Amino acid sequence: MFQSFEVKSARETVAPRVAMLREAMRKAHVDAFLVPHADEYQNEYIPPCAERLAWISGFTGSAGFAIVTAERAILFVDGRYTLQSANQTDPAVFSIESLVDCPPENWLATNALNGWKIGLDLALVTFAGQTRFAKVLEKSGATLAACANLIDVVWDDRPAEPMRKISLQKLKHAGERARDKLAQLANAVGKHGADMCLLADPASIAWAFNIRGSDVAHTPLPLARAIIRAAGDPLIFIDQRKLNREADAYLTQLAKVCAPSTLEAEIAAIAPGAKVMLDPDRVSSLIAGMVEKAGGTIVKKRDPVTLPRATKNQTEIDGCRSAHLRDGVAMTRFLAWLDRQPAGSLDEIAAASRLEEIRALTAVEMGSELLDISFDTISGAGPNGAIVHYRVDKASNRLLEANSVFLLDSGAQYRDGTTDITRTMALGTPPAMARTDFTLVLKGHIAIATARFPAGTRGVDLDPLARNALWKTGRDYAHGTGHGVGSFLAVHEGPQSISKRGMEPLLEGMIISNEPGFYREGQWGIRIENLVLVRPAEALVGGNVPVHSFETLSLAPIDRRLIDTNLLTREELVWLDAYHARVEATLAPYLDDADRSWLKAACAGL
Amino acid sequence: MFQSFEVKSARETVAPRVAMLREAMRKAHVDAFLVPHADEYQNEYIPPCAERLAWISGFTGSAGFAIVTAERAILFVDGRYTLQSANQTDPAVFSIESLVDCPPENWLATNALNGWKIGLDLALVTFAGQTRFAKVLEKSGATLAACANLIDVVWDDRPAEPMRKISLQKLKHAGERARDKLAQLANAVGKHGADMCLLADPASIAWAFNIRGSDVAHTPLPLARAIIRAAGDPLIFIDQRKLNREADAYLTQLAKVCAPSTLEAEIAAIAPGAKVMLDPDRVSSLIAGMVEKAGGTIVKKRDPVTLPRATKNQTEIDGCRSAHLRDGVAMTRFLAWLDRQPAGSLDEIAAASRLEEIRALTAVEMGSELLDISFDTISGAGPNGAIVHYRVDKASNRLLEANSVFLLDSGAQYRDGTTDITRTMALGTPPAMARTDFTLVLKGHIAIATARFPAGTRGVDLDPLARNALWKTGRDYAHGTGHGVGSFLAVHEGPQSISKRGMEPLLEGMIISNEPGFYREGQWGIRIENLVLVRPAEALVGGNVPVHSFETLSLAPIDRRLIDTNLLTREELVWLDAYHARVEATLAPYLDDADRSWLKAACAGL
Repeated sequence: MFQSFEVKSARETVAPRVAMLREAMRKAHVDAFLVPHADEYQNEYIPPCAERLAWISGFTGSAGFAIVTAERAILFVDGRYTLQSANQTDPAVFSIESLVDCPPENWLATNALNGWKIGLDLALVTFAGQTRFAKVLEKSGATLAACANLIDVVWDDRPAEPMRKISLQKLKHAGERARDKLAQLANAVGKHGADMCLLADPASIAWAFNIRGSDVAHTPLPLARAIIRAAGDPLIFIDQRKLNREADAYLTQLAKVCAPSTLEAEIAAIAPGAKVMLDPDRVSSLIAGMVEKAGGTIVKKRDPVTLPRATKNQTEIDGCRSAHLRDGVAMTRFLAWLDRQPAGSLDEIAAASRLEEIRALTAVEMGSELLDISFDTISGAGPNGAIVHYRVDKASNRLLEANSVFLLDSGAQYRDGTTDITRTMALGTPPAMARTDFTLVLKGHIAIATARFPAGTRGVDLDPLARNALWKTGRDYAHGTGHGVGSFLAVHEGPQSISKRGMEPLLEGMIISNEPGFYREGQWGIRIENLVLVRPAEALVGGNVPVHSFETLSLAPIDRRLIDTNLLTREELVWLDAYHARVEATLAPYLDDADRSWLKAACAGL
Repeated sequence: MFQSFEVKSARETVAPRVAMLREAMRKAHVDAFLVPHADEYQNEYIPPCAERLAWISGFTGSAGFAIVTAERAILFVDGRYTLQSANQTDPAVFSIESLVDCPPENWLATNALNGWKIGLDLALVTFAGQTRFAKVLEKSGATLAACANLIDVVWDDRPAEPMRKISLQKLKHAGERARDKLAQLANAVGKHGADMCLLADPASIAWAFNIRGSDVAHTPLPLARAIIRAAGDPLIFIDQRKLNREADAYLTQLAKVCAPSTLEAEIAAIAPGAKVMLDPDRVSSLIAGMVEKAGGTIVKKRDPVTLPRATKNQTEIDGCRSAHLRDGVAMTRFLAWLDRQPAGSLDEIAAASRLEEIRALTAVEMGSELLDISFDTISGAGPNGAIVHYRVDKASNRLLEANSVFLLDSGAQYRDGTTDITRTMALGTPPAMARTDFTLVLKGHIAIATARFPAGTRGVDLDPLARNALWKTGRDYAHGTGHGVGSFLAVHEGPQSISKRGMEPLLEGMIISNEPGFYREGQWGIRIENLVLVRPAEALVGGNVPVHSFETLSLAPIDRRLIDTNLLTREELVWLDAYHARVEATLAPYLDDADRSWLKAACAGL
């Protein structure tokens, strides 16, 4: 499950595969076929058997969409993947469009001919997504035609579905019994006036049943579904092969354990008029269609697990602190090691691999286990650091050169918590402009770390605080400031974010990243990321509203050599010195003498 | 058109009027009748003949809604009017509900019985509003029934519609000829694929035709409508009695001048299938219905005048600067005069009246005219200052007491610009906490005044900068930070705002208020308001995005006696001293010796 740095390229396979698909389209009598990146579970990471977009187009990015017609083939990607997609696909077959400026539905509205049948696999598109597509197509005279997945029809050596065993997330890590969670969910379903709720998000199943899986990389998801009934007696749809005896005994106590293939029959058997709650942004059009066919009334509501999962309980918070202690020790050992390497002796892959190694060793030494990394490490030296979603492979791999800047964004999956941390390091003496850039980013990071804000404040209301110092100098970064993080679950977890689109109030117990950045194209990238926890702040004399603040969870030194102290206010210096003092006091006991000395110097007051 | 401080109370008339309405409802066979505050033009200020909500309920606030049924009568108001509405209406007749927590449509969805006919005058509700109502009512089995306005039926001495003469906004103030504006609008209509556009917002008519009216208080609106045709030859619907010979000659050159009563016939005569663009949030359901009846296809788009009106041209900007010079001189004269009054010798009404007087005198002296105040002055002494939308009348009028705080929010309509300014003054030596509150508000004001932000930044992204210093101390204020302001037009003009709902990008040439505040209930209110202009900022070395900044337009000293300099950063002090230096240098030449000395002291460096 850990990272591979192989260059994936299938450019030469694109033309023959598209030809095969067109033949299948002809037989299925469809004029176009849609290939979303998403799998049946709408996850960020998908199993190899669901890599249909990569199989047909060669493009391996984490978001995208393809439309194939008898004459044309279009690959839609967002800005971060423009270059990569051009390198990976066959330009003689696929033309590339912007997923943002010209989304697939708009392309179809313009290009689909009256009478066209546009084939798609309803399992891969959400209920809301299909509605949007159908609405846009209304005027064109073309119609959506549900059909078998024609990629699967022609994909000969398609890998099998993942069938890895699930594990139980014990009470000491989950903090709440699954039966209590399930009872509360049943109650919530009833309160929404529904008879039952379809849960289609594996992260929701994981949380509600206190189980974890390893069906996809980097997120411990069990690919499964569930039905929560207001009257109790939930059902879980999971392949029996994923259950060892303990898991089987455990789940059987909690729910009726059903084979995934029985979901359709189960839905078909609901009472006519039964009210079925589902999240139109999570549940596939295929499943929503089963409910409609069975005569059920769909109640559109957000997945009821979303908020309880996002607002961590005390056990999860304590676990997260332990995970961050371990992660901080590993990061510090790595940073100290990095500083001891001769200039120009390392490349991006070597650095990322060494960090993974140290994380694994440290976890074991501290009585835990590194179960996975939480995402593909971003290890960007010099100009590669300026590519926001850079993922190093053997072709792009750069040396960490003297007098440059190195950005490293990584995270871990421990049983008690998920981590995600970015540090940007000076190698030798970087240009003065890099120090200015770094210090302005640091000001934004500190603005979030020290923010106090009225209860109910949304992420959109905090995002500008991270940017203000950059804005004043004409700088900005083109990504959000923070994303939610799960508890031994997805490293990108909703609903909260600190971003221009962050309309969700930040509630006590939410964990979110604080990661402003700045990217100087062709030169370097800067990002400073810690995870923070939302908690109530003490009331102050003269205040008139209850306020919340953040507790910084991540523990690792921030490179003092990149800080221009003239640009910091007294308050900012006070925060930085206090943070470093805490980092040193917390981590020093776990380090050997050499690393402890290094840490002491790295955390000295400024 | 200026302010009256009479106490309006019609409590004793409520019961008999509601009885008359119920009788009319019985005859019209409707089970409920809806009384919005809005008039046919959806303006903030409405003429006396449209004060239907006040007539039936006694409540005179600027927003509200009533529902009258055979048995019940409900008055819906927002939080700022809870107390006022309870004082003004007859509680034996009207019960009061929250416009926010229980909007009228939700009340009806819960309380309307199956089969009910809910009467309303379609002229008073927007197309979007009616759609929303109808949707909410769907499940109840009740239906909306368009009918005559039953208030008008029973309102015997209803005032006549206003018929004041319009004036021309000359090129030297408008900066662009009406015929050029109309040609551009026609072009915009064509670009949206429409044959014509219905303009229903009087502020849009005023801007497009370069005319101003005085049909309502405080905003120089001509109550009129227009049709802009993509092919040219616009139509304006305005009562002939509002046109003197000059205006008649002028408008006849620009457009076909039609009687308002001919609008329906004009719409009925459109070609079947004609595409009619209209803004569903501005055009009444009555007019939209005429289009549908005539076989037109409605193209829902934002009023095409909205953005051109909001982004002021150079002439309007220059005019606005002149208006602010005049207004600053008047404010300074007033503040100097206020300082000379013995403690406890003035009340809120006397202060507001004196300011109006000085504004009028100063305008004439400086070669202009105070045409109106731009809204009812908020003159709040001590605890009255903590009531955000306070409007003094003879009953609430308080003395300006020694050792307290006085908040004064006022504005003017000059031919070349609209102003809006708030200052909060120390009377004697206010409590230390008032200085802390004031200084924290000032920090927010300066954060906006000195902001630089990427082109395209929305108001929602700046709002937190105004609050951050308050938030850090557990303080907040429950209103937006800034609203758009017109050019000799509405003092509240969309689409931009600096607020939690400000999703509109701030564009070059927009004028917006910068008015953070803090309100200590029962003690005092603090607000510091200047108008600012959005303009491109110079590029800085190291920047990677084009940025905008604000030019502060309002000129008047900010009370130094309320500032705790220990709470300000060096940068904040630099801004304040520079602003005061500019205020002094700009205004001093227009002041007599006594006022000039006062200003010098008020603007001394801190």
